[in-house]
Amino acid sequence: MLKKGDIIRTQDAYWCVVSGSDVWLDNGALPFGSAEAFNLPEQQAICVGTYQDKPVMWLNDEQVEQTLPMGSLRDCLEYPEPLFLLMSKAVQYGHMTQSIRFCPQCGGRNHLNHNQLAMQCGECRTLHYPRIFPCIIVAVRKQGEILLAQHPRHRNGMYTVIAGFLEVGETLEHCVAREVKEETGIEVKNIEYFGSQPWAFPSSMMMAFTAEYASGELTPDYRELTDAQWFAFDQLPPVAPKGTIARSLIDLTVSE
Amino acid sequence: MLKKGDIIRTQDAYWCVVSGSDVWLDNGALPFGSAEAFNLPEQQAICVGTYQDKPVMWLNDEQVEQTLPMGSLRDCLEYPEPLFLLMSKAVQYGHMTQSIRFCPQCGGRNHLNHNQLAMQCGECRTLHYPRIFPCIIVAVRKQGEILLAQHPRHRNGMYTVIAGFLEVGETLEHCVAREVKEETGIEVKNIEYFGSQPWAFPSSMMMAFTAEYASGELTPDYRELTDAQWFAFDQLPPVAPKGTIARSLIDLTVSE
Repeated sequence: MLKKGDIIRTQDAYWCVVSGSDVWLDNGALPFGSAEAFNLPEQQAICVGTYQDKPVMWLNDEQVEQTLPMGSLRDCLEYPEPLFLLMSKAVQYGHMTQSIRFCPQCGGRNHLNHNQLAMQCGECRTLHYPRIFPCIIVAVRKQGEILLAQHPRHRNGMYTVIAGFLEVGETLEHCVAREVKEETGIEVKNIEYFGSQPWAFPSSMMMAFTAEYASGELTPDYRELTDAQWFAFDQLPPVAPKGTIARSLIDLTVSE
Repeated sequence: MLKKGDIIRTQDAYWCVVSGSDVWLDNGALPFGSAEAFNLPEQQAICVGTYQDKPVMWLNDEQVEQTLPMGSLRDCLEYPEPLFLLMSKAVQYGHMTQSIRFCPQCGGRNHLNHNQLAMQCGECRTLHYPRIFPCIIVAVRKQGEILLAQHPRHRNGMYTVIAGFLEVGETLEHCVAREVKEETGIEVKNIEYFGSQPWAFPSSMMMAFTAEYASGELTPDYRELTDAQWFAFDQLPPVAPKGTIARSLIDLTVSE
């Protein structure tokens, strides 16, 4: 028979309470312990995976009575990758519950289907899985230079590689060529896959490529960008933070 | 001043009238000519791109008065790729108008925003772009053999490579390893990107990989598959048709 102590030990878990892209952080760390100790509604929590053999539990902040100190998931980019990805998963499920409240097919009210981790329509029973927006991100190089752009949404003035959403009816490689052309006027060649990263802001799959300059003159699209320039590898501006696939692409490019 | 003949000539277009995954085919070909000649509602048609400098126009079959002979987009896999991709695009926009009728955020009625090629909520004005489901597809090889599976949804008994939908919080490479493990019990290594193909059934982005057998015994998941086997390169069963990225993966694997 289980003793009380056993029950408490099996409840030891990481608690990922989410609100938008924010998560509950306790002095910068993901809270770990029993639901009881934190006064959390354990029955409503859903396990999104395990980290070092301990469950990582997801709750939306509206399910929690007390007001918790929240921090941005972006500030957790240097956490161990497996933990960061589970936190991203909780944030994306949180986003799903907020953004797919109604059935897009019949307009019925959706509720969370706990077994499928999807929203389900109370009327037509259709399951709606969390959306994942496919995006490309590409480092374009020209001899000893890399093409970097500045976006109005980045308030700290940092530069990063070109990125954009996949459209229907195009391959990833078409998308890379189209986005670079639309945003900078440049034609590229030798498009090569580099890697992928799920990105929970709010719910994308970043697919990273390298490419080489083929032709064209740099003419930034100022409706999308505040600037775009060729930067010498040894004279880079402030760039995307460590932990992002954008930064890995930049580091790879300037190291070659 | 334009003469009547000029106007008719500028109306010469490919007409992609869609219903689900079916398109209007005239003796196996995409109809080409003027809206007038075909008695089509030109004002409602939307250009999804150009093929050989001629516009490719999308209409849903419910916008067309007459009953048209339809064929499956799958039967057009051997069309020139640029035309096939534009037809895929029309099918996916058609799917969008059918599957995103209501705003998932507020439940309001959506309508097509012609400029954005997205659905827009009449209440909260949110734009909903067509969904694209990211999927992986992978050819696993072990010395002179390839891992192929048979799916209950393929009625002709053909075999193909392992595939599955990306989940939130995983990379494409994690997804490849997870899907192969779940469907066949096999662990893989040396996962390498091969290429991508938009797949309009109903709206996926297929991202293709090769991988090598690492360990494990073949134990097909019969809830998902009717069979899975290692096949010698010179003794393949009937496989996925030409024009699919599955077939390209199989052809590449057995040619190496």
